[in-house]
Amino acid sequence: MSRYWSDFVHSLEPYVPGEQPQGHNLVKLNTNENPFAPSPKVLEAIRMATTDRLRLYPVPDGGPLRLAIAGYYQVPAEYVFVGNGSDEVLAHVFNALFRHDKPVLFPDVTYSFYPVYSQLYNIEPALVPLNADFQIDIADYQRDNGGIILPNPNAPTGSLLSLEQIQRLLEMNTDSVVVIDEAYIDFGGESAIPLTQRFPNLLVTQTLSKSRSLAGMRIGFAIGDPQLIEALIRVKDSFNSYPLDSLAIAAGVASFQDEAYFQQCRQQVIDEREWLISAMQELGFEVLPSAANFVFARHPQHDAATLAAGLREKKVIVRHFNKPRIEQFLRISIGDRSENQLLMSQLDLLV
Amino acid sequence: MSRYWSDFVHSLEPYVPGEQPQGHNLVKLNTNENPFAPSPKVLEAIRMATTDRLRLYPVPDGGPLRLAIAGYYQVPAEYVFVGNGSDEVLAHVFNALFRHDKPVLFPDVTYSFYPVYSQLYNIEPALVPLNADFQIDIADYQRDNGGIILPNPNAPTGSLLSLEQIQRLLEMNTDSVVVIDEAYIDFGGESAIPLTQRFPNLLVTQTLSKSRSLAGMRIGFAIGDPQLIEALIRVKDSFNSYPLDSLAIAAGVASFQDEAYFQQCRQQVIDEREWLISAMQELGFEVLPSAANFVFARHPQHDAATLAAGLREKKVIVRHFNKPRIEQFLRISIGDRSENQLLMSQLDLLV
Repeated sequence: MSRYWSDFVHSLEPYVPGEQPQGHNLVKLNTNENPFAPSPKVLEAIRMATTDRLRLYPVPDGGPLRLAIAGYYQVPAEYVFVGNGSDEVLAHVFNALFRHDKPVLFPDVTYSFYPVYSQLYNIEPALVPLNADFQIDIADYQRDNGGIILPNPNAPTGSLLSLEQIQRLLEMNTDSVVVIDEAYIDFGGESAIPLTQRFPNLLVTQTLSKSRSLAGMRIGFAIGDPQLIEALIRVKDSFNSYPLDSLAIAAGVASFQDEAYFQQCRQQVIDEREWLISAMQELGFEVLPSAANFVFARHPQHDAATLAAGLREKKVIVRHFNKPRIEQFLRISIGDRSENQLLMSQLDLLV
Repeated sequence: MSRYWSDFVHSLEPYVPGEQPQGHNLVKLNTNENPFAPSPKVLEAIRMATTDRLRLYPVPDGGPLRLAIAGYYQVPAEYVFVGNGSDEVLAHVFNALFRHDKPVLFPDVTYSFYPVYSQLYNIEPALVPLNADFQIDIADYQRDNGGIILPNPNAPTGSLLSLEQIQRLLEMNTDSVVVIDEAYIDFGGESAIPLTQRFPNLLVTQTLSKSRSLAGMRIGFAIGDPQLIEALIRVKDSFNSYPLDSLAIAAGVASFQDEAYFQQCRQQVIDEREWLISAMQELGFEVLPSAANFVFARHPQHDAATLAAGLREKKVIVRHFNKPRIEQFLRISIGDRSENQLLMSQLDLLV
């Protein structure tokens, strides 16, 4: 607390990311990173871009990356906005598109950065409860609002909405912006990006941190009608002209060019997820259906916090949220086979 | 314009950075980049960090870079905040420390991002005119305010305040935060960083884009009392947990470790500046005294916009601001000797 602070800073409750311990002998299943390395072609592209030209500023709008994303998703470049991780993109979205008189709707159990952005920009949130099965019911969003944001699949539950459900949401909600946060879509869902051509109030955000194994590079993007993108550009250009450094731009472009590696990696994560779900169910865990690179699970006989602490003692780190409704769940990122086996052998001792 | 935009977006007038043409055969003297390459040790550090571990998130607080900066400037690590370029750091400063009832003071002729930040965060600015010699007079800042921000040296004039003048400013202004934006300090000024130990309302910002030749990596930082840093951390953690990617962190650390290269490069820029000033004066230009890596100059007989356009035709790009008081000036970044010679030979034909 300090008299020098702007007033609102006193009441901010910042987002708390999963811890990033820097030790090497940990099984780190707490922040939904990809267990597989980035494409070798991405690493090569970074090395190629590591030249004297780093003395120069990057392209302000992420130029080549914007084009690569537009090409990959077959939308015009004016539909694409890039930023320093999808967290930054989402921050600009709340500021540029959600500051209206009416509340912004999002699930009660969802990505915990949404309430933080709301606070940062003085936006009133209205939490819409997941149903008893921890699923989003589109019908619950049929109410007056200043914007809607939903992760698909949802985090930390992993539950997926179909494209049909999203289309239904868009048809019933035309007066405010609907953001579909597709951080985990590549692990089993169908992207809503094609719908951006038909619904001028739809914005889809994605990240290269998860399915493209580039959490360390901080690259996110949004796709939507050029009018929505224009608002994001205005706010970004009033905040930081060059949010993506030259190496992030090079890495992102190369990632979208190596489709074979992406598909193989993605499928491997999906296969591992199915293996892990079966193994956990055999131990008596109730695992929510997941279309993401993590599972959300509880055990009828074992306290989640105790399990998380027990795993931690054995150097296996998973995420536990001490929050209403989900305090008995663990969110466990999908590791590679050896990590998943190690996790299971430790869980086997604990339950 | 769109009904989906937050209201304030309609009236935003974003910052316009100097253009970043991607052609290779231009003499680009318009955005104050360093003419010399980053340290070879920095490039090597980036290559070494380009590994499979990019699949993992970076350290959220920039960890090793924070420590490297603290070590270099001999301040405790809690005095250091790092961000995605000093533009991002400054944006957080305006939000976290300048949103008070009273206006924020800055010069009428200064970094043109300050009025943009003010607009973004709905802060009332009060412009304090430079004196007739285009210098900042500290006495003019003796008035009620919600914060003060000054570049030192000032941009785009290049004029330097002494440490004594800054200390005087701090002694007379204790009720609000004073930010000294030292983007160009390494080219001839004395940093106010040591004063942060004595004045809890002093925040000093710097960037690695200019004197450390890393514009392409987007690394900036602030140093000040831990209470001020805490406000920046709160806002940053409500915006984007990981603003610096893993390669930027590695590059920044390596830069602070290669002191010999830094000193040599810095001196070379200073020598080139003195050469350029003499050459321009011989052509009849009035050049303001500069402690930066650019000069700000006008010619009594030649219109600045015409000169800029004439240079552009010959592929030499300099910056011209079409703004009150300075519309007859050119801001010219210091190039290497061949670039400066090319500039002079073209100016020779134009004046």
